[in-house]
Amino acid sequence: MLKVMITGYDKRSEIIKKYLSENLKNVDIYSYENTVDYDTNVVILPVPCTLDGITLNYVKNTTNIADFLKLIPEKAIIIGAGFKNDRVFDLCNRDDFSYLNAIPTAEGAIELAIKNTDTTLFLSNILITGFGRVSKLLADRLLSFKGKISIAARKSGDKAFIKALGAEYIPINELDNYINRYDIVFNTVPCKLFGEKTLKNSKENSLFMELASREAGFDKEAIEKYNIRYINAPGLPGKCAPRTAGEIMAETIINLLNENNLC
Amino acid sequence: MLKVMITGYDKRSEIIKKYLSENLKNVDIYSYENTVDYDTNVVILPVPCTLDGITLNYVKNTTNIADFLKLIPEKAIIIGAGFKNDRVFDLCNRDDFSYLNAIPTAEGAIELAIKNTDTTLFLSNILITGFGRVSKLLADRLLSFKGKISIAARKSGDKAFIKALGAEYIPINELDNYINRYDIVFNTVPCKLFGEKTLKNSKENSLFMELASREAGFDKEAIEKYNIRYINAPGLPGKCAPRTAGEIMAETIINLLNENNLC
Amino acid sequence: MLKVMITGYDKRSEIIKKYLSENLKNVDIYSYENTVDYDTNVVILPVPCTLDGITLNYVKNTTNIADFLKLIPEKAIIIGAGFKNDRVFDLCNRDDFSYLNAIPTAEGAIELAIKNTDTTLFLSNILITGFGRVSKLLADRLLSFKGKISIAARKSGDKAFIKALGAEYIPINELDNYINRYDIVFNTVPCKLFGEKTLKNSKENSLFMELASREAGFDKEAIEKYNIRYINAPGLPGKCAPRTAGEIMAETIINLLNENNLC
Amino acid sequence: MLKVMITGYDKRSEIIKKYLSENLKNVDIYSYENTVDYDTNVVILPVPCTLDGITLNYVKNTTNIADFLKLIPEKAIIIGAGFKNDRVFDLCNRDDFSYLNAIPTAEGAIELAIKNTDTTLFLSNILITGFGRVSKLLADRLLSFKGKISIAARKSGDKAFIKALGAEYIPINELDNYINRYDIVFNTVPCKLFGEKTLKNSKENSLFMELASREAGFDKEAIEKYNIRYINAPGLPGKCAPRTAGEIMAETIINLLNENNLC
Repeated sequence: MLKVMITGYDKRSEIIKKYLSENLKNVDIYSYENTVDYDTNVVILPVPCTLDGITLNYVKNTTNIADFLKLIPEKAIIIGAGFKNDRVFDLCNRDDFSYLNAIPTAEGAIELAIKNTDTTLFLSNILITGFGRVSKLLADRLLSFKGKISIAARKSGDKAFIKALGAEYIPINELDNYINRYDIVFNTVPCKLFGEKTLKNSKENSLFMELASREAGFDKEAIEKYNIRYINAPGLPGKCAPRTAGEIMAETIINLLNENNLC
Repeated sequence: MLKVMITGYDKRSEIIKKYLSENLKNVDIYSYENTVDYDTNVVILPVPCTLDGITLNYVKNTTNIADFLKLIPEKAIIIGAGFKNDRVFDLCNRDDFSYLNAIPTAEGAIELAIKNTDTTLFLSNILITGFGRVSKLLADRLLSFKGKISIAARKSGDKAFIKALGAEYIPINELDNYINRYDIVFNTVPCKLFGEKTLKNSKENSLFMELASREAGFDKEAIEKYNIRYINAPGLPGKCAPRTAGEIMAETIINLLNENNLC
Repeated sequence: MLKVMITGYDKRSEIIKKYLSENLKNVDIYSYENTVDYDTNVVILPVPCTLDGITLNYVKNTTNIADFLKLIPEKAIIIGAGFKNDRVFDLCNRDDFSYLNAIPTAEGAIELAIKNTDTTLFLSNILITGFGRVSKLLADRLLSFKGKISIAARKSGDKAFIKALGAEYIPINELDNYINRYDIVFNTVPCKLFGEKTLKNSKENSLFMELASREAGFDKEAIEKYNIRYINAPGLPGKCAPRTAGEIMAETIINLLNENNLC
Repeated sequence: MLKVMITGYDKRSEIIKKYLSENLKNVDIYSYENTVDYDTNVVILPVPCTLDGITLNYVKNTTNIADFLKLIPEKAIIIGAGFKNDRVFDLCNRDDFSYLNAIPTAEGAIELAIKNTDTTLFLSNILITGFGRVSKLLADRLLSFKGKISIAARKSGDKAFIKALGAEYIPINELDNYINRYDIVFNTVPCKLFGEKTLKNSKENSLFMELASREAGFDKEAIEKYNIRYINAPGLPGKCAPRTAGEIMAETIINLLNENNLC
């Protein structure tokens, strides 16, 4: 019998609970209410685990995370997403989790792009920085809208592949020279690509969207200085497809338990 | 010299004015302010022309349409969209206008579908009724999200073509038997396909969207009776891409003037 | 009991025989061997029905068609493809047959284009004339190779739709002005679009392919005069996918029998 | 002044010569005719460099490779494709070369698949093994034909990505269990995936195509024993798009010279 404790009372927690119940045999799932059963095998943390860095992201927000972790039996495995701690398995490090989440991320980014522009994606000049999971899927979907898609990447092999997929290749270290072409820019690279000079050169009224981890890609002062239209869009899966996001998390948890022979 | 009067002060009117100025030579464009110049050649009505069926859809909403039309010189051509009147050229009857508008309509429908579901389009079961302009473009874009797309149509030739495009064909007169499969349903057919029986059979929590003219496709009482999730979404081009919508209107107006040797 | 006679001994005839046996109940199928049973309900002609216009396209090519048709009981329905005769149902007039055949036609045209050029379809400038069944499917497939696809069409509505699909629109009556851009040209229009002037203007070493009925689109003398690379490619379904071609024919025959309450 | 010697007299050599002349400044290109100029900077080997492993793949096939290499000045760089030798830069090790060649490889594979089956790609069950360059591009193009594409891969991240692209994922170590579904199988993995057991289980009349290096993937004895329809298809770029293949080689050579500050 596997005993699983779920922390959190939001919709996603409910979905994970339901998914695990339906897809695991011999499982006993309960929700955290200030105590942790001594025979708990698996603990699932809330997402995000904490909002302030100190207390657990939980109903009352008064539980200290360090104290909470001490309550958990040593043999139990603790699973989180985006929370870094020696005792915690971070789902974000898993390829299956990242790729599955790239799907709702791409859909959410497209929703925001349609909503926040007064033109169509059709014929728009669109730039995606980076050529990882999110970038590839976003490009795949956007190409069907028949916009003009460019991808900013680094490697000579990527250049050929990007062109073969029907997009244009832009050398990522020459963003300054190309940025004034684009109506919409999606950043997927977790380092500061958009500094003052690049933003200054950007096209009037263009829309920038941050899809990498929290605001990594942009110089916030320059955004204000040049009055850039900017959307910080982390956590799109949870926002635009919460049910799918919960199921993705549950599915990855099952993969992880399988690999550890726990189910 | 072509003298054009634009009625309306919304964003779209501004865009049409700008587009015509930039793309026509020898043109004098002015906005309606209670009087119509006697040498006006072209009058462009607001869209929609009226909200209540009686008064012009104009700043103060106090101008009677019939009276307004009498102010216009007989030789002038009057251009509207969706307003039926013997003196008025209705752009909605033109193929170029309809096809161009199908593009922002498809984009807006996708935005609404992503926003109003808690799952991804990816793997969703999606039905589009009809196989006209909007249906074809919507299917083209949705297929890239790798949902499972069905199209309800009538003709044997359409069946083969729909399958060749990668969608499933559903006979439109057997909607009742298939409707319970679908998570999202887009109606593009301007007649009542979704009566009580069909809606009763629909999948729990599925989303219905009306893309045909105002609520033609659905039995409104049944929608309430069965607590159907329903979005009436007319005029998507003007809502999700107002600049493009204005430019489409201006471009079609120029085509029409060209064909009448007026520019 | 439905009694069906199949004329012809080629692979396609075998496939039709097998398909009908497997998909019809209460059917008795036999092959023509110089006599026609008096209780035959359905006769399926060979494709093409004749090679010389006089004799049946049959093993020995000695049966006169007119004589052969007289052998068939009056009440029997006679089904052919591409053979015009008052007594014969011509499958080519059916939308389902045409659309289904457009699929192998498009595939065969792509095979020939890859084979007969020394460059890739990727980045090639490709023109398709017409915007009917074959054109639409061929464009759909070719777009995935990321060539630059143009479609020559006539209607203003087509222009918008072609652009929305990601291809370029060319006015079909201005072929002369555009023809020198193209590396590959597919003709799907059954009238003489490519006269001397157009072919004279074409790009050096470009490849022309005739997909419409036999050589309708091209001035044969000009082809020789200007040493044009030209492939006349009628009947691609039977050549590049004979099994599918036979199944398409059999499926359409069943549709036709259904509509006539014969099965 | 850069002095380049090209070895080989086939069409590809001519294309490389032309491409380099047009795209490099201050270059002097000559063809090998039994002597090598002492001031030669760059030597381009024939592709393949040798047919028998001993003599140069050259007009008369009488030059010993080892002797030939000794003729080349020490400071010159020697460029080949697929020829392993300490003095030779092998273009096959470069990402740009591999990705660019994946494009004509995918096109050639599709040409062969259409040609060597009697059905359409449409609705065929198609398997691609591996998820590298060729596999990704081949899948991208094949999906447009609306076949049912499966990809056999290994990683959990690939599984999610493959599904997101619209194909089915098959665990590559369970080929035996799935192989009987497929009408067409493309191998892109350079190790023996198709042993006796797998081939024995394969569907009757299915077509296998080897796209990896020479016959790495298949047990040749089992192919004969089970009468498998098998096409060994190495070097597709040179065969189905020789001009493009030459240009790809020339373009990669220029990249390489650039990186070594030789042009």
